[in-house]
Amino acid sequence: MRTHALQEVHPQHRLNAITDGDISVPVTAISLADSLDGSPNDDVLLYRTAGPGSDPEMGLPPLRSEWIAGRGDVETYAGRAPELADDGRSAVRRGKASQSWRGESRPPLRSAEGATVTQMHYARRGEITPEMRFVALREGCSPELVRDEVAAGRAIIPANVNHPESEPMIIGRAFLTKINANIGNSAVTSSIAEEVEKLTWATRWGADTVMDLSTGDDIHTTREWILRNSPVPIGTVPIYQALEKVDGDAAALTWEVFRDTVIEQCEQGVDYMTIHAGVRLAFVPMTANRVTGIVSRGGSIMAGWCLAHHEESFLYTHFDELCEIFARYDVAFSLGDGLRPGSIADANDEAQLAELKTLGELTQRAWAHDVQVMVEGPGHVPLHLVKENVDLEQDWCHGAPFYTLGPLVTDIAPGYDHITSAIGAATIAQHGTAMLCYVTPKEHLGLPNRDDVKTGVITYKIAAHAADLAKGHPGARVRDDALSKARFEFRWHDQFALSLDPETAMAFHDETLPAEPAKTAHFCSMCGPKFCSMRISQDIRDAFGSAQEQRDAIEAGLAAKSRQFVELGSSVYVSDEIAEVAR
Amino acid sequence: MRTHALQEVHPQHRLNAITDGDISVPVTAISLADSLDGSPNDDVLLYRTAGPGSDPEMGLPPLRSEWIAGRGDVETYAGRAPELADDGRSAVRRGKASQSWRGESRPPLRSAEGATVTQMHYARRGEITPEMRFVALREGCSPELVRDEVAAGRAIIPANVNHPESEPMIIGRAFLTKINANIGNSAVTSSIAEEVEKLTWATRWGADTVMDLSTGDDIHTTREWILRNSPVPIGTVPIYQALEKVDGDAAALTWEVFRDTVIEQCEQGVDYMTIHAGVRLAFVPMTANRVTGIVSRGGSIMAGWCLAHHEESFLYTHFDELCEIFARYDVAFSLGDGLRPGSIADANDEAQLAELKTLGELTQRAWAHDVQVMVEGPGHVPLHLVKENVDLEQDWCHGAPFYTLGPLVTDIAPGYDHITSAIGAATIAQHGTAMLCYVTPKEHLGLPNRDDVKTGVITYKIAAHAADLAKGHPGARVRDDALSKARFEFRWHDQFALSLDPETAMAFHDETLPAEPAKTAHFCSMCGPKFCSMRISQDIRDAFGSAQEQRDAIEAGLAAKSRQFVELGSSVYVSDEIAEVAR
Repeated sequence: MRTHALQEVHPQHRLNAITDGDISVPVTAISLADSLDGSPNDDVLLYRTAGPGSDPEMGLPPLRSEWIAGRGDVETYAGRAPELADDGRSAVRRGKASQSWRGESRPPLRSAEGATVTQMHYARRGEITPEMRFVALREGCSPELVRDEVAAGRAIIPANVNHPESEPMIIGRAFLTKINANIGNSAVTSSIAEEVEKLTWATRWGADTVMDLSTGDDIHTTREWILRNSPVPIGTVPIYQALEKVDGDAAALTWEVFRDTVIEQCEQGVDYMTIHAGVRLAFVPMTANRVTGIVSRGGSIMAGWCLAHHEESFLYTHFDELCEIFARYDVAFSLGDGLRPGSIADANDEAQLAELKTLGELTQRAWAHDVQVMVEGPGHVPLHLVKENVDLEQDWCHGAPFYTLGPLVTDIAPGYDHITSAIGAATIAQHGTAMLCYVTPKEHLGLPNRDDVKTGVITYKIAAHAADLAKGHPGARVRDDALSKARFEFRWHDQFALSLDPETAMAFHDETLPAEPAKTAHFCSMCGPKFCSMRISQDIRDAFGSAQEQRDAIEAGLAAKSRQFVELGSSVYVSDEIAEVAR
Repeated sequence: MRTHALQEVHPQHRLNAITDGDISVPVTAISLADSLDGSPNDDVLLYRTAGPGSDPEMGLPPLRSEWIAGRGDVETYAGRAPELADDGRSAVRRGKASQSWRGESRPPLRSAEGATVTQMHYARRGEITPEMRFVALREGCSPELVRDEVAAGRAIIPANVNHPESEPMIIGRAFLTKINANIGNSAVTSSIAEEVEKLTWATRWGADTVMDLSTGDDIHTTREWILRNSPVPIGTVPIYQALEKVDGDAAALTWEVFRDTVIEQCEQGVDYMTIHAGVRLAFVPMTANRVTGIVSRGGSIMAGWCLAHHEESFLYTHFDELCEIFARYDVAFSLGDGLRPGSIADANDEAQLAELKTLGELTQRAWAHDVQVMVEGPGHVPLHLVKENVDLEQDWCHGAPFYTLGPLVTDIAPGYDHITSAIGAATIAQHGTAMLCYVTPKEHLGLPNRDDVKTGVITYKIAAHAADLAKGHPGARVRDDALSKARFEFRWHDQFALSLDPETAMAFHDETLPAEPAKTAHFCSMCGPKFCSMRISQDIRDAFGSAQEQRDAIEAGLAAKSRQFVELGSSVYVSDEIAEVAR
């Protein structure tokens, strides 16, 4: 199979691997220049979500196929017969889907009769799977920790047996904070190729999982292309596709249509699915006096269905059947927060908390089937109420990983909601949220384009990393320290290479001081060569040696040292070229 | 005097005023459309920092002159004789400053012999000044609260008697969180007119104070133009100008040169000055083993001076003389954190905390002279160590207002440090920091341009407002609630008008759905007309009335209501035009 090399984000980055026996985990290695004193600087190895790169028409190699087959607990089967309606109403009109998948097609797998093939099932039996070993290498922890956290339900490894291309990753508070990027087609503007490109783009900048929220045409075929090319787990909201199958009429939805859609997606390889089973009939009236009602699309579909039929949600009443299906493929639940607050005014209200309690009950029901679960959270929450969300979730949902959308800490900044939500996201992750769903600058206003996807991913890498630093995650500070050391030593190229977004950092630098010599100069573009506090600090260090030597010098009143600095100082300040502002 | 109308940020914004007797405070009034049910929506009144607008060549009217004169405790005097060196080395070479100030020049004021003219002095005597009444109207609190907080040193009103153009504002944890924007000339790229334009631009987007950090040519004259046009307090770091006067040789600085520079700036009307008097000789060695040494420019100047002379800092030894000077003009101290950490690795270390303790001692020395004080803080701090900074500052500095630069919660995102720092800024403000110094996307990389200044200000308005919501500041939620209500009712123009950045919000909306009808349509650009969760919520409310009515309906199993919703639902879902993605 051909694979195209993925474009690295900086010339000093290269694809490398860390191995443990037969397990090999791709990492990004960043090579660094020597320090001024000639001492070398070790490569910095980064967690890599972009995979090895693929030819979109061929897809990725099935990394996990042997591991799955090796367990001897799956069977291939004919699978559900495809229908034109799987690709939406215009496929029905046209009589065919467009751009059908041309790469390898494998028959679907499911558990052999009576077997359960979830990572939670293996973990609870005490087994350490190759997936767990892969995850442990990625996270720099023991495989036993991975197994124990998965067994306890405090972490999940989304890993559908029909998505063998995915590199195993873990979502749980004991591990690195993860981020999700949403993509999905638009009937107006987007082609299948564009969706694959968005997937690759999002993982290149660091998305740990991707949700395909397509609702337009060719929804089945688009998902096929995405899954076959995705090195990260793929999530969906199957009610969106189900709604398409009933011509957009929520009241016409049935358990049977929904179940059929779920099985269709299980067979394709979707790793986790958002299921809004907590939107119960009795909770819907609790939203009537909200400032912003129900803002979740899945939540409002189910609320509309419950009211139209005056019945309990079919997702709730059929939940155990869903668990049985998920257990056969190892699909994880992402229990949707259909009643999440859509404004500061509605945060932590009766409707939201009633649903959260129900999600805790559903978590236990899923765990009874050894099905992995994470729980979704808000939304819009003022900063002082953020921690309560994760505390209640951890308590009521028995430690299941929390997966939140921001939250946005104010409503007044449309156009900047990546920032309003990054503040809430960093805070909620600091307190134990395991995965953050990104928000782009277009939130509330329009469809994210390529730049918005990148901005959303980078912003959420910041929030997640800030939380990892705050949680004292082992190794999290390596990159900060390497970058700050490079900054202090004026190794500009290393500073760019260690940045989350090297291109932007270099472009901003070059706006002020574009010439190549400025990237090796011992000053920066804010203060210019005339005056530089960092250089003075270095001169202090050079002139006075270690802290103890400096203390000794001060105590001894060493006039000679002072004179030495005066001489040095003269050379520091004589250049007179650019004078700039900096506090 | 001619004044030019300031361009408002949105057509629905207009300059208005709230008055109390003879005190009139400018506010921005946002007019809103009626709700769908015909009920009107009140104007939203916003705190306004932009002033009434000025002709740059004429300056603003001296709003406070009568109040100052009315107290009968100031005298005019000849003032310090201007020198060419005040405008830097190239003015000395040329023999003149460029673009001298052409508007009105008033002789400088200072306290009459034996008098103290600080707001703290008046407050401690139990007086409520017009400045305090103005502030109380702006903040929506009682004048007594303002007086008591100023008297206790927990808040400051920076208000040099020589800057009568400034509209009084207050910095303290009991009040709205404020933000500062840094501007300042660059010998390479910036003219005086450009600096005035940057000032106006920064206040238009909401900067509460502006620091002029000029170090280039025409430093005195640039400051004159800025002060005469500034409706907000102006801060400076006088050591920058003093360094220019000694040809950039830190070792050549003397107390006399520094004092002369401070008096020059007091006479011009600078409202607060950053003084790095906490960088004591004994603390300098504590920085030698840091990852990033000393990153404050003022801090490194003073560290260099201390070491070169092997003497205690002249700022520390002459601090009481500085207090005597400041008391004659009502200049506030901004006690500089010259040893702030420049990286995550250096956060909350020995050097930083030793300086902070000293700032607490200096605070009490300033208060003994009735001089107002705020204390500067970091910098780079991981999220879990942020709160400790404000807790220690409040404790060691006896409740003096804290004024921090971010802090940045990670070092790995140059190009996005407005975001890394907004996370820290919102958190530290939530815990009691009174003012936040903005950070632009160019931090660490280059000089902010006009767009960067705007991005920095908007980002910091978000952080400050998020903190005000979290602190439960009375009235803070009005704007959030009005915007969310407009969003829920699809009043797009109102949503834009209520945004921090209406232009950007509208531009992002129009990228996806540009036509004017889309701004009155009852759906938005994410989901399109086919499916809209917000509309379903409204339909639920319309169909079922209040929460109690809905509960009653559910309990009664009211089939008719269900049928009604089904009929309604049909009309909701039939339109088939655009299908878009949203979680």
